[in-house]
Amino acid sequence: MKKTAILLYPEFSEYELTTALSILMQGGKPITFISLTKDSVRGEAGLVSLPELAWNEVNYEEYDSLLLTGCTDIQEVAKSDDYIRFIKDISSQEGFVIASISSSPFLLAKAGVLKGKKYTVGMYEEDRKASPYFEEENFVGELVVEDGNLITAWGSAFIEWGVTFGKALNLEFEAAWYGKRN
Amino acid sequence: MKKTAILLYPEFSEYELTTALSILMQGGKPITFISLTKDSVRGEAGLVSLPELAWNEVNYEEYDSLLLTGCTDIQEVAKSDDYIRFIKDISSQEGFVIASISSSPFLLAKAGVLKGKKYTVGMYEEDRKASPYFEEENFVGELVVEDGNLITAWGSAFIEWGVTFGKALNLEFEAAWYGKRN
Repeated sequence: MKKTAILLYPEFSEYELTTALSILMQGGKPITFISLTKDSVRGEAGLVSLPELAWNEVNYEEYDSLLLTGCTDIQEVAKSDDYIRFIKDISSQEGFVIASISSSPFLLAKAGVLKGKKYTVGMYEEDRKASPYFEEENFVGELVVEDGNLITAWGSAFIEWGVTFGKALNLEFEAAWYGKRN
Repeated sequence: MKKTAILLYPEFSEYELTTALSILMQGGKPITFISLTKDSVRGEAGLVSLPELAWNEVNYEEYDSLLLTGCTDIQEVAKSDDYIRFIKDISSQEGFVIASISSSPFLLAKAGVLKGKKYTVGMYEEDRKASPYFEEENFVGELVVEDGNLITAWGSAFIEWGVTFGKALNLEFEAAWYGKRN
């Protein structure tokens, strides 16, 4: 089975990420944690985690999907050409599935991956409109937005986002592990 | 402000832990990740994390609270006398607050910390009843159970559990970050 690439960056949101991780685990999906280097990365709530690969060690063909969690300052992360290039290149594969939550669609937008796709993003409206990367006509103000193989969501919908991603990957899992929602 | 100790063990549940972590971050509560040693610890969904202190480096007086997440095989963790001694000793402080989710109340039970307290635990009923550590008359079959400074919960109630813990610590935070529940 091909793998899901999980990108770690400084101040990544642990809670937005980890329900999706648990769904991948339930479904037996192999995963790899990737960052700029293999140095440890501190999440926004303080959990220090170790990536398994640096971005330039990744063999793209082993992956069919990408998971991007939110982070306290996504515009800082987006300043790295390496993160943006990695996202653009890995995502260019046929049928590639992307799940991106909270502020992280900003990385996709800068990488050109959102072009012509319906999306949502957890950013202030004025920041979104001021950004040169987002197509305003394709923004959808819903908690979870699916357009083909692209799943974007607001941070508060992290459970539904993870469930949608697991279904898009045809995984078997129990969504009830994560409780009931309205 | 005194700190919250967060115990990491092999196969710890990342998703059960991280909403509570985010609430501690929102509330400005200092935290420390603690394990048997400072070696990295792999969570049940594959996230490899670094503890900041080994259990025998901890100055108990700096802490007013303990966070215990679930894990795939809590009985394996409970075989370590060091984990159990640490939990027993740090919890013996006056007014100490404990939040324990999913299977992790098993560690509290073995450490004697559940004695005379109402609790819940995410374990099969037969395993709970077969264990010599749980007081069956104090088990409560509810998603979140508070008895004084002790908060226990089922894994699926990880958001409500984190919110209850944040309130018990008198922290200010926005529960809306984590979405709506029934």
